[in-house]
Amino acid sequence: MARVFNFSAGPAVLPEEVLKQAAKEMLDYEGCGMSVMEMSHRSVIFKDILTTAEQDLRDLMCIPDNYEVLFLQGGASQQFAMIPMNLMKTGNADYIVSGSWSKKAAEEAAIFGNARVVATSEDKGFSYIPIIRENDLNLGADYVYICQNETITGTLYRTLPETQGVPLVADVSSCFLSQPMNVKDYGLIYGGVQKNVGPAGTVIVIIRKDLITDEVIENTPTMLRYKTHADAGSLYNTPPTFGVYMCGLVFKWLKAQGGLNVMYKRNIEKAQVLYDYLDQSALFTGTAARENRSIMNVPFVTGDPELDAKFVAGAQAQGLVNLKGHRSVGGMRASIYNAMPRQGIEALVAFMKDFEIHNS
Amino acid sequence: MARVFNFSAGPAVLPEEVLKQAAKEMLDYEGCGMSVMEMSHRSVIFKDILTTAEQDLRDLMCIPDNYEVLFLQGGASQQFAMIPMNLMKTGNADYIVSGSWSKKAAEEAAIFGNARVVATSEDKGFSYIPIIRENDLNLGADYVYICQNETITGTLYRTLPETQGVPLVADVSSCFLSQPMNVKDYGLIYGGVQKNVGPAGTVIVIIRKDLITDEVIENTPTMLRYKTHADAGSLYNTPPTFGVYMCGLVFKWLKAQGGLNVMYKRNIEKAQVLYDYLDQSALFTGTAARENRSIMNVPFVTGDPELDAKFVAGAQAQGLVNLKGHRSVGGMRASIYNAMPRQGIEALVAFMKDFEIHNS
Repeated sequence: MARVFNFSAGPAVLPEEVLKQAAKEMLDYEGCGMSVMEMSHRSVIFKDILTTAEQDLRDLMCIPDNYEVLFLQGGASQQFAMIPMNLMKTGNADYIVSGSWSKKAAEEAAIFGNARVVATSEDKGFSYIPIIRENDLNLGADYVYICQNETITGTLYRTLPETQGVPLVADVSSCFLSQPMNVKDYGLIYGGVQKNVGPAGTVIVIIRKDLITDEVIENTPTMLRYKTHADAGSLYNTPPTFGVYMCGLVFKWLKAQGGLNVMYKRNIEKAQVLYDYLDQSALFTGTAARENRSIMNVPFVTGDPELDAKFVAGAQAQGLVNLKGHRSVGGMRASIYNAMPRQGIEALVAFMKDFEIHNS
Repeated sequence: MARVFNFSAGPAVLPEEVLKQAAKEMLDYEGCGMSVMEMSHRSVIFKDILTTAEQDLRDLMCIPDNYEVLFLQGGASQQFAMIPMNLMKTGNADYIVSGSWSKKAAEEAAIFGNARVVATSEDKGFSYIPIIRENDLNLGADYVYICQNETITGTLYRTLPETQGVPLVADVSSCFLSQPMNVKDYGLIYGGVQKNVGPAGTVIVIIRKDLITDEVIENTPTMLRYKTHADAGSLYNTPPTFGVYMCGLVFKWLKAQGGLNVMYKRNIEKAQVLYDYLDQSALFTGTAARENRSIMNVPFVTGDPELDAKFVAGAQAQGLVNLKGHRSVGGMRASIYNAMPRQGIEALVAFMKDFEIHNS
């Protein structure tokens, strides 16, 4: 069996050790005679998987006690609705639009109230993070929304907007657990796990407890209330049990690597290998503004769509797969999440160098 | 490794062959060098998994072309809201309440409109399916709702209510693929897959195309519109990719067994082994009305909670696990889904006989 280097933006590469363990335990989890997939979610053994996963995540991110951790379903797209349905108490929220995902979130929120776009970088194809100046934000807003790392255009907030007490809500799907975060700077942090944490179908929400109330928008389904899930410890109904288990294995793997400080250092070094080459290449150009470059998603182009296609096909033949850019922007994108080994990036850069020599 | 006989009501036993295949393909699906969990949902290889799964389900259930098949998230509990949000065009629906799940569905629907309880069997602890007489139903209702098999109290509709053209909506979570169904008798059929089909976190909706419209209740999130998912072929956002894959493996397994007619015959025979014993036992009593007995979930009691607990513990020690009844009703429950081998039921009956001898 030959594993490829998988640069998919998500679902994405998972640690090989984790997949091996999941395969090994597939028919019999820890001697209980059944798969995790076959367990009642109300069994002692599954509850232990759930509480251990939550505690490991709390340890990794240093999540304070006044925050709930919820394992939910529906992906980030469902959070685009759940957030305003639960948090728009006065009907006003500020959205900073730095890419396709924050734009979609703002559009969805507009169904439920006044989702004001405070700033957008759409003028330059979402290649940068808009700068927020004093007085840009509405201090009476229910929350300020950001997408901390935009997967498609590869931008990352280096510093958070100063919201002066207004709860900050952040979609961290594509930078989840890639670096330490100061959780108390946020009102709500959430991410679909299928990029950096686990299999598609689980979304993790970390929410300050005082933001969980009974007061929701009219016609909010029971399943879309944070309070429903917080009150039930993520067991209101059957959670995505196997997804929670896989996330738990990844949390253990991250702890074994040394935690988020170690991962952050490693991720910066890995990204640097690729950016250093891009910055001196005459053929390839990174498309994100230098000061906002993501360390998880690196989009780049040759400027010639035919050459881009030739590159993607050639890389694929070398076992460097899923390098095609998002259908909305074209070009290439290398997603280099926690589980992408440095060797994968070195192999990519070696191929790029070779491609440049033969195509300049 | 010793596999147990797992009588869990859900998540529940899966075919051992399917789990073995999933384990084998965990690091490398069909030579592509990655796990199904690591694949982009927009890749050719995943799309093939999705379309093959859908086609196999269509073959198994003989789903007519004027029905959509949707792979969604959120479980049955989310469908309790999605159904009225999408189908309550006039604001009126009729609910037949035959157990905890249809009761919960009716309560959720009441958030969005007039969810009239036409009939209920709560007077006798949901031990039977209410009989619907002519004129009981509102012929102007947007739909009539049933839970075709109630997991907790173990009842199954043998004949469907005559709705005279009003679309019939059925929760089939705990009888999904246990027997052939005449799909065109329904407007919408849905089930959480974690009982008879796959891992928790995927819900399958089979809906007649004319019921999918843009007209929804106010404040319906984009993710909770059937049209969103139908228009995108279940790829509006990242679906629960591994769950879809596992369902697909189970569909192939069902086809290899001979399809739903074969499974139905086998399921009747399996259930008969248990019911025959219950009907002549002086110690154990089946709690569901004889004419409404489920062939998937078989609740029974001794009448003495202490003896019930002793039975459950004793069975567990013999590798007959998860026989405790639902927390809301107590006693015992044997869930005997498609993947439960006949030997499991024979082993259970042998243990019951032995227990009866020693505890009468």
